[in-house]
Amino acid sequence: MSLFFEGAEKKLEVVVSETGPNLRHLGMDFWQALVASADADILSQVSNDYLDSYILSESSLFVWDNKLVMLTCGGTRLVDALLHFIQCIGVDVISFVSFQRKNEFIAALQPSTFAEDIALIRQHITGKAYRIGHLDSHHHYLFHSPKPYPKAQKEITCELLMYHISGDIADYLRSEAQEAAVIRQKLQLSTLFADFILDDHLFSPFGYSVNGIKDDKYFTIHISPQEQSAYVSIETNLDLAHYRVPVFANLLARLKPSSWDIIGFNLAHEEKEFHAHLCLGSCSITTSLGYNIHFSHYQQSCKEVLIPEFM
Amino acid sequence: MSLFFEGAEKKLEVVVSETGPNLRHLGMDFWQALVASADADILSQVSNDYLDSYILSESSLFVWDNKLVMLTCGGTRLVDALLHFIQCIGVDVISFVSFQRKNEFIAALQPSTFAEDIALIRQHITGKAYRIGHLDSHHHYLFHSPKPYPKAQKEITCELLMYHISGDIADYLRSEAQEAAVIRQKLQLSTLFADFILDDHLFSPFGYSVNGIKDDKYFTIHISPQEQSAYVSIETNLDLAHYRVPVFANLLARLKPSSWDIIGFNLAHEEKEFHAHLCLGSCSITTSLGYNIHFSHYQQSCKEVLIPEFM
Repeated sequence: MSLFFEGAEKKLEVVVSETGPNLRHLGMDFWQALVASADADILSQVSNDYLDSYILSESSLFVWDNKLVMLTCGGTRLVDALLHFIQCIGVDVISFVSFQRKNEFIAALQPSTFAEDIALIRQHITGKAYRIGHLDSHHHYLFHSPKPYPKAQKEITCELLMYHISGDIADYLRSEAQEAAVIRQKLQLSTLFADFILDDHLFSPFGYSVNGIKDDKYFTIHISPQEQSAYVSIETNLDLAHYRVPVFANLLARLKPSSWDIIGFNLAHEEKEFHAHLCLGSCSITTSLGYNIHFSHYQQSCKEVLIPEFM
Repeated sequence: MSLFFEGAEKKLEVVVSETGPNLRHLGMDFWQALVASADADILSQVSNDYLDSYILSESSLFVWDNKLVMLTCGGTRLVDALLHFIQCIGVDVISFVSFQRKNEFIAALQPSTFAEDIALIRQHITGKAYRIGHLDSHHHYLFHSPKPYPKAQKEITCELLMYHISGDIADYLRSEAQEAAVIRQKLQLSTLFADFILDDHLFSPFGYSVNGIKDDKYFTIHISPQEQSAYVSIETNLDLAHYRVPVFANLLARLKPSSWDIIGFNLAHEEKEFHAHLCLGSCSITTSLGYNIHFSHYQQSCKEVLIPEFM
């Protein structure tokens, strides 16, 4: 049986009100304890005037004055980081929480289900939760707090999740002698994200994470190339609909996934530069907070010859 | 949150050698204990000169003189029925075992994983195991014992698994006042399976199982129409490639699933009468025992508008 790693991420976003603390002043010990509560570690950190970016042993953390975005993969317990945060900061200064989970490759190996996670969150914060997508296909779970907050309708986030990558770059990512600089070059990060401060990490035996920041913008890419569960995600708060490069089409062309998902918040997303595909399902909803959530699941348009995996 | 029921079945097939007992002589107490060991019950039984057919609280059991086929859905532990059978009969008179699991809608709710199941089986019987299909899409797990037995290359089985049924018949199956006779008529069972002895059961609040037998042939249909996990399976040892009616195309046209799988053993399967579809992935392998296994995953060819499921 080939190596397995659960690349699919859980994602937490928290916004604190003006009466709350400046999150960037809470100090490294605070963030180390928060990350540890999710069963992950901080590996490195870069900062600019707007935000601090952390590479974690399982994905990434971004901290602005009044907001945090945390993604963790593997068997982490991200919900525990939220509970830890609420315990330290108090629930009253929290303006907004969203908690998401993408369906995992092997859900049975996770320490909790999304339903169990939101039962814990709802002991502190009421909120709406839904699943988008069928249980037997790619699907996405989302919880958000009920109170509208002023910026909710303007903030943009988008995610591209790619499954079963193939081709030269995929082969390189699964090879034994990789270098971070070569991965950056193969993904053309300096073209796609010119002038971003980059912080990256190569895992053993493989796996690659990179955070990039520029002003108040971030992107993060996580690569788990293991054959039977190959997964690459990118997430950013850039407005890709009005960006100078078609970032998602570019990455799809390089990484050649057999299927992929796009999840967007307030993003007018664009698929016309994607390679040949079929959109199997799509959902666009406007939440009670006034922002829009979009989910689409895509599949390459050719039939795949499946290879049995011996167990 | 709408009702959830795990329709996806586990399947066990065991063949005993000429030195073993006649399975049909083992008596009702034996089969009741075997079924109970998997955490299910026998609801009814019909027989002919060749085999005994049992409707279970979770799916079905068929018993011939030297063979059993057992399917169980929900949260049953079918592997425990195999361990019970080995304990009662002894491993030496077993000529052949195959144990299969279709990926479940919510794998995390299952009492065991396939990997855990085959670790238990391998304490008694060595054998090959594989997964066909990606972990994040429809996939199928199969274990089989290593010894060839004479009839392996001739026996045919085929399964059609339908997901997210829609249309008039699906609506009826989810309605409150169903009747078994009406379901039989809507599925045209008397046309598709003329001269079969039928035994069926209507579950509450919904759900329907039917077994049919004729000579040494059987078919079994299980319907779990619950909205978010709607699933209908049919399995038979009829040679559908040389049958007078295109059974699978007929059921697909009536039940209008958004996706479906076909799993065949030694079956030249035929998809030309299916409604518009895309075959997303396919695998055909010949095992070391000389028989052929085929798996194909299909999707309707139109894009689906996904409806969020509140939690």
